[in-house]
Amino acid sequence: MNFQDQRSGRLLKAPENFIDPAGVRAVFREGKAGRRDFVRGAFAAAVAGAAAPAALAQANPVPATGGDPNILELPAHTRGLGQPVVTDGYGKPSQYEANVQRRQSPGLTQTTQASVSFAPLQSLFGIVTPSGLHFERHHQGWWDIDPSKHRLMLNGSDEKMLKRPMVFTVDELMRLPSVSRFHFIECGANTGMEWGNVAVPTCQYTHGMISCSEFTGVPLKLLLDMAGADYKRGRFLLAEGADGSSMTRTLPMELVESGEVFVAYGQNGEMLRPENGYPLRLVVPGVQGVSWVKYLRRIEVGDQPYGAKDEVMHYIDLMPDGRHRQYTSTQEVKSVVTTPSGGQVLLDRGYYQVSGLAWSGRGKVKRVDVSVDGGRNWKTARLQGPVMDKCLTRFTLDWAWDGKPAIVQSRAMDDTGHVQPTYRELRAVRGSRSIYHNNAIQSWLVQESGEVKNVQLS
Amino acid sequence: MNFQDQRSGRLLKAPENFIDPAGVRAVFREGKAGRRDFVRGAFAAAVAGAAAPAALAQANPVPATGGDPNILELPAHTRGLGQPVVTDGYGKPSQYEANVQRRQSPGLTQTTQASVSFAPLQSLFGIVTPSGLHFERHHQGWWDIDPSKHRLMLNGSDEKMLKRPMVFTVDELMRLPSVSRFHFIECGANTGMEWGNVAVPTCQYTHGMISCSEFTGVPLKLLLDMAGADYKRGRFLLAEGADGSSMTRTLPMELVESGEVFVAYGQNGEMLRPENGYPLRLVVPGVQGVSWVKYLRRIEVGDQPYGAKDEVMHYIDLMPDGRHRQYTSTQEVKSVVTTPSGGQVLLDRGYYQVSGLAWSGRGKVKRVDVSVDGGRNWKTARLQGPVMDKCLTRFTLDWAWDGKPAIVQSRAMDDTGHVQPTYRELRAVRGSRSIYHNNAIQSWLVQESGEVKNVQLS
Repeated sequence: MNFQDQRSGRLLKAPENFIDPAGVRAVFREGKAGRRDFVRGAFAAAVAGAAAPAALAQANPVPATGGDPNILELPAHTRGLGQPVVTDGYGKPSQYEANVQRRQSPGLTQTTQASVSFAPLQSLFGIVTPSGLHFERHHQGWWDIDPSKHRLMLNGSDEKMLKRPMVFTVDELMRLPSVSRFHFIECGANTGMEWGNVAVPTCQYTHGMISCSEFTGVPLKLLLDMAGADYKRGRFLLAEGADGSSMTRTLPMELVESGEVFVAYGQNGEMLRPENGYPLRLVVPGVQGVSWVKYLRRIEVGDQPYGAKDEVMHYIDLMPDGRHRQYTSTQEVKSVVTTPSGGQVLLDRGYYQVSGLAWSGRGKVKRVDVSVDGGRNWKTARLQGPVMDKCLTRFTLDWAWDGKPAIVQSRAMDDTGHVQPTYRELRAVRGSRSIYHNNAIQSWLVQESGEVKNVQLS
Repeated sequence: MNFQDQRSGRLLKAPENFIDPAGVRAVFREGKAGRRDFVRGAFAAAVAGAAAPAALAQANPVPATGGDPNILELPAHTRGLGQPVVTDGYGKPSQYEANVQRRQSPGLTQTTQASVSFAPLQSLFGIVTPSGLHFERHHQGWWDIDPSKHRLMLNGSDEKMLKRPMVFTVDELMRLPSVSRFHFIECGANTGMEWGNVAVPTCQYTHGMISCSEFTGVPLKLLLDMAGADYKRGRFLLAEGADGSSMTRTLPMELVESGEVFVAYGQNGEMLRPENGYPLRLVVPGVQGVSWVKYLRRIEVGDQPYGAKDEVMHYIDLMPDGRHRQYTSTQEVKSVVTTPSGGQVLLDRGYYQVSGLAWSGRGKVKRVDVSVDGGRNWKTARLQGPVMDKCLTRFTLDWAWDGKPAIVQSRAMDDTGHVQPTYRELRAVRGSRSIYHNNAIQSWLVQESGEVKNVQLS
């Protein structure tokens, strides 16, 4: 059985035991032995001809037959009436997917209101993160704020910095010209445990503080234009949230002038979720999540950085010489293999699709290379389109596992020429006492047992 | 106050009463008058300086002050601890968004198991439909099928048509090379009521049988290659579902050979929802929804169309000469303005962003024109990127409503040159006794009262 490499067009040979004829025969045997599952119906359908079971199921629900293998027996869902439409005006995932959850890392913070829940990257497909599984990071818990009472104020640090201070209702903002764009948001502390070589078990915990959505909102530049901001003197902005932490972050005005920053109310087609800033949050593409201020209530234009607690005490980089580096907000080029990844088990040798996510806060992902031997050899992966600016990009590569230990890695490059570093390269510059801004190459060890483990190569 | 047209670069003049200074002053007055909402805190913050309220709220929650306007009073969410992370491992929308639901049209069908729920297009942003709001169309109700028991069988109508009949488990399919692509799915009966000039009230009911997702799955061509399909004789396929309706649809083999058709398990990053075919459904880009067979259990390769009940009796076009046209499956180029749309009310004159959705089953949307005078004059709308193949495209246009009656329309063109027809043009060919495949230009009448109404221009 062969697969064509979709990129090079070459044929890849997969081992014999990948969905082999014996497996198919076994499934057919199970069906014949009377197991009351779909296989039975499918087998019967193949024997009886295409239309027969369908017509039969509709006209005359078939009762259980006591296991007589010669009598057609269909599963309940083929015999009866299902659920009506709109049993729930807002749907939920299958009961069989209950294990796909965002999860808290026990003990990571002292209170659950100032904590994190991680997105289950190992279970996700494509690039869109379902809003129900979007990672959470709260500084003083989340609120479901009444949008009819919420306001956004624009003011200047003095009267000349912004000519017309304005207060907007959410409805007023939603009447203005809008943009919708796909962007990732990554917490600056994502992969932070790995600085200390803690090697948490799964990619949910190593990389799960990233998510990707289609956000909708009003360009901040438009609001500042309306309010008459002084772009010459006002080279900085303060964004302030309405929750108890009163999160405040400085933004350089040039980011806003680029047109990229917007005040979002929409996420993946609907309003923002409460735990992600409903009804308003700032979207600052490419910049760490803490600057995407949730429950956004105020923007101030000023002439210098604000030095807020979350930019001088937190979200800073402790360098090897003991100094703190501040305002390093851009999320550098990074990637992670999500299949296979820590905690997963390869049940058999043979074909696997290596799959993962790549992103860069500086632009588009240009290339992702994958290694299965700890970085000695690299192959260029397929990038799935659309490849968008400051957005997750899904990559895949065909791989036939030979049953021997393998170390799987991915290395992303962006369109500005930045390349994701090894831990050795990153530590040579940054040391090992950081918490934030770890974009090093992740290594997953596939053991002979098939179990996959988080390891760090020195 | 002026807005720059993002496309032409020209300045658009908006009337004075759009977010006017008097309105802003009124909001400030309300804040001063002691209303216990955010405005108060924001105003106080502007007066007291940036950091003060934040520090205060954290250190010392402020009690109610009995309305003394000189004393700082902050809302509860600024004073206290919020909800902890992961109170729900799978999140929900805000309680204030409870009205954004998919809805059934009462009396449309005789049983709720063979009915429809419509997506609330008037409340959605961008192009992604949240999976919880994806439209539903069931033929015999929906099921939550156990994926460990579900199987997909490939067979031929005779032994030579497909050399190696195969049965796949869902896990086996998920190990294979996958693709993720954004596509719309539209029911062939979408906008069907309008053939009879019924003029249902809202765009949820006129156009809400369309949704758009990032789907993930295995190209059907790959499975047929593995099974050794005879592409020379086997020019048709039958796709069969596992629910009680045993939905069966014919597909021409050339669609599959194009590489576009795939067996999907993922939708918007997670597994398909039960009401949309969990664990497997066919994705047939550009083709009406009924061919995207849900609960997919079998694919048969054959040498002629199958003439199943849902292709010879339903999903057909009754032509003016009394003949039925069958197998017209491609969803032709179409669009609808979602704001303003039926049931909405414009509360005031002034600036509005006209916003809507366009799509074509033949390719990409190339251009959308918008008229506010019932089709006498047209302006080209902005298309929001990414513009993808057989995918929804969001368009917007700036508009200042002068308070007089207006008829708002949109007209889409695709990259094959097809143009969305008027009702007059459509009826000249198709008559008026159809149910399916209505892609005519939709008209919304904005009345002097601001109320928006569904109308049909003769």
